Amino acid sequence: MATEGFRALDEKSLVEYIKATPSLCSKLGNQLDDLQIKEVGDGNLNFVYIVIGSAGSFVIKQQALPYIRCIGESWPMTKERAYFEAVTLKEHGRWCPDRVPEVYHFDRTMSLIAMRYLEPPHIILRKGLIAGVEYPLLAEHMSEYMSRTLFCTSLLYHSTTVHRQAVAEFCGNLELCRLTEQVVFSDPYKESQYNRWTSPYLDRDAEAVREDNALKLEVAELKSMFCERAQALIHGDLHTGSVMVTHDSTQVIDPEFAVYGPMGFDIGAFIGNLILAFFSQDGHADPVNDRKAYKQWILRMIEDTWNLFQKKFTTLWDEHKDGSGEAYLSAVYNNPELFLLAQRKYMKDLLHDSLGFGAAKMIRRIVGVAHVEDFESIHDASKRAYCERRALEFAKMLLKERRRFQTINEVVLAIQDLPS
Amino acid sequence: MATEGFRALDEKSLVEYIKATPSLCSKLGNQLDDLQIKEVGDGNLNFVYIVIGSAGSFVIKQQALPYIRCIGESWPMTKERAYFEAVTLKEHGRWCPDRVPEVYHFDRTMSLIAMRYLEPPHIILRKGLIAGVEYPLLAEHMSEYMSRTLFCTSLLYHSTTVHRQAVAEFCGNLELCRLTEQVVFSDPYKESQYNRWTSPYLDRDAEAVREDNALKLEVAELKSMFCERAQALIHGDLHTGSVMVTHDSTQVIDPEFAVYGPMGFDIGAFIGNLILAFFSQDGHADPVNDRKAYKQWILRMIEDTWNLFQKKFTTLWDEHKDGSGEAYLSAVYNNPELFLLAQRKYMKDLLHDSLGFGAAKMIRRIVGVAHVEDFESIHDASKRAYCERRALEFAKMLLKERRRFQTINEVVLAIQDLPS
Ligand SMILES: Nc1ncnc2c1ncn2[C@@H]1O[C@H](COP(=O)(O)OP(=O)(O)O)[C@@H](O)[C@H]1O
Ligand SMILES: Nc1ncnc2c1ncn2[C@@H]1O[C@H](COP(=O)(O)OP(=O)(O)O)[C@@H](O)[C@H]1O
Ligand SMILES: [Mg+2]
Ligand SMILES: [Mg+2]
Ligand SMILES: [Mg+2]
Ligand SMILES: [Mg+2]
Ligand SMILES: [Mg+2]
Repeated sequence: MATEGFRALDEKSLVEYIKATPSLCSKLGNQLDDLQIKEVGDGNLNFVYIVIGSAGSFVIKQQALPYIRCIGESWPMTKERAYFEAVTLKEHGRWCPDRVPEVYHFDRTMSLIAMRYLEPPHIILRKGLIAGVEYPLLAEHMSEYMSRTLFCTSLLYHSTTVHRQAVAEFCGNLELCRLTEQVVFSDPYKESQYNRWTSPYLDRDAEAVREDNALKLEVAELKSMFCERAQALIHGDLHTGSVMVTHDSTQVIDPEFAVYGPMGFDIGAFIGNLILAFFSQDGHADPVNDRKAYKQWILRMIEDTWNLFQKKFTTLWDEHKDGSGEAYLSAVYNNPELFLLAQRKYMKDLLHDSLGFGAAKMIRRIVGVAHVEDFESIHDASKRAYCERRALEFAKMLLKERRRFQTINEVVLAIQDLPS
Repeated sequence: MATEGFRALDEKSLVEYIKATPSLCSKLGNQLDDLQIKEVGDGNLNFVYIVIGSAGSFVIKQQALPYIRCIGESWPMTKERAYFEAVTLKEHGRWCPDRVPEVYHFDRTMSLIAMRYLEPPHIILRKGLIAGVEYPLLAEHMSEYMSRTLFCTSLLYHSTTVHRQAVAEFCGNLELCRLTEQVVFSDPYKESQYNRWTSPYLDRDAEAVREDNALKLEVAELKSMFCERAQALIHGDLHTGSVMVTHDSTQVIDPEFAVYGPMGFDIGAFIGNLILAFFSQDGHADPVNDRKAYKQWILRMIEDTWNLFQKKFTTLWDEHKDGSGEAYLSAVYNNPELFLLAQRKYMKDLLHDSLGFGAAKMIRRIVGVAHVEDFESIHDASKRAYCERRALEFAKMLLKERRRFQTINEVVLAIQDLPS
């Protein structure tokens, strides 16, 4: 681990750092006189500075603390995650440059990444969803990002040689994986000092999660899949807080949890967080806006995201079926009927994985350590608990019964059919 | 890769090597005067020398050729596999010292392992099965080896930290994995210059394998599991030719294909090769011995191996349920009913994986590049084809319908119920 030579920067020392780094100076058109620097980190692990000069700009992300910000020094965390974040931004950017900010500079010793500044009106998607804003290209863009990054880092696209080498490298990001294992797959299902929920309203609900044998059996399967299955280079934290949007633009940031893992973990994170956004809407309704139409829009996004993902992913597969991917050799899957059957089976399994991981991600946001602003911003605790309970009940059902859903439309219908 | 300093040894230079290696000299009680040296390699990749002195002995295995012996220089193969074999002998030996020959010396540059000589009457199990010899402790010993090595290298026993580090290391054995991927999961299902079968008898059968859509869909799933799922440190080549036996002793050798992979790949290799032995018996029957009783003994071994494996594996799990394994935290799987359900689900999935991989291993031995002596030693080609066809048909059924078997007894009954 790189600790030698590391210095946590503040706004002042950051300027010195920039001045001493030619690639950063040139990004600013060598106009370093009146730089505006603003710390905007809202995450739990890192510092993020926006740097704006008169002739250019960028964002600096430094993983400054060797522990988790919101919990404190009791939860140490390697700084090497900066390396995996930088490598993943570049690798995902290679396959989907329009949806990933360009990396300008990476300093491993300093755990520091400089990347494109996603200028206003870019905001974090989660905030847009809370505000009730529609993003017409969201499903199109997110399906593009997920299909390209997941397909192109899987055995559908590359050889097992390339794959095993890449898997080996990302095994190094194990501390971040362990955090996921704990907060997603373990803590919500046991007593843990870190867990919290809207108390006392959800006391019984949290207990019910801890006592649900069928649920815990399914969670074990998902946890094993997360720990053992190197299907593709996943982002690892693809909730709506890792996406920045405008009306026309969608950008995926913050892949520090990246690892070779199951594709459904990314797809599920995104869809699960959209479902959370859906269930939070009742808490944001007011006399001016009852959010009814907006709720339907969110459901449409869920449906479109998966359906477009499926379409783009299988189209990539069609295009590359004679390529270097080694999972389905064209000499073996050599007739159109068989090829179609293989794709259908693959996509059906992937849908079920995605629903399972999505549901697990929902549950942990309601009874685990880290909650989501969608619910947290509902100040009336009883109203918040009502929204959270409905989301939790749906997630539990989805996790246990995911295999009975054949299409995403059936999932959306199940949400629409819930009693209010 | 270590090529610098490498020299392929012959019987003469081997003596020089031994003399220059103190640990080997001392294994021979420093009595180096009239060493008997015999090359016994029957494999395709390596040279194996038995070294016997007046006061000690050992076996030297050198992976001398950077390609596969039987195919020639057209199929290059890294010498680093010696490293993975040595590491695995030691790791598996650590968990199950009674079933793995002790490693005395490893020389990475020379791709050379010295290990305990498994003295006569040890013979390769496959040869014993062809000769019709019963080994009363076989199921007991093999279930012990598999349960210990697989359990203790899985997330049931160790932390995800240890696991990801070990997975990363074994990703380096990718060339041997690629060989498995090709010869087990790809070549038998397509036209390949390497494939062969008992022609012309099985021409139509080989073609049927290549045209069986349902079979090829299932094989894709198994191949993905092999390539993606790092469940435990598997031997990787656990057929009956990798086991040496006497009446009282069972020793597992030759783990050069070791990798973190699905446990079912090892269990299936062993059971699948026992099933091959079963189907070959009709070809070895003669007026003196109709092999009927021996066939029943093989079936009993199949059943006992799995059932004892299951028992020993779950016993280990019971014993270590509060240990460092992170797949099933005791705080989550915290009531006896749930814990039992979790074990049952795990073992049911593992049985299905094992049957699938076992069947795939059977198929490849009949229509792929490398055949087994069980059948090859049946000189009458039409008789051989008859035995092979029955094995092939059973394997195809098993691969496609493995999930309908709830116990190993049902599999054995299905074999017994076959029309002759
Ligand atoms: N490239 C960028 N352009 C603009 N804002 C950014 C950029 N990267 C991060 N941010 C802002 O900083 C916040 C924290 O960044 P993020 O990478 O998510 O860090 P963390 O890992 O700490 O969550 C984001 O939520 C976003 O508001
Ligand atoms: N430790 C040993 N003691 C006795 N014989 C051995 C030993 N190891 C290997 N052999 C003999 O050498 C043969 C080849 O060894 P093996 O490790 O299987 O090499 P390969 O990888 O070439 O198949 C075995 O089938 C067995 O007959
Ligand atoms: Mg973030
Ligand atoms: Mg982050
Ligand atoms: Mg061998
Ligand atoms: Mg061999
Ligand atoms: Mg071998």
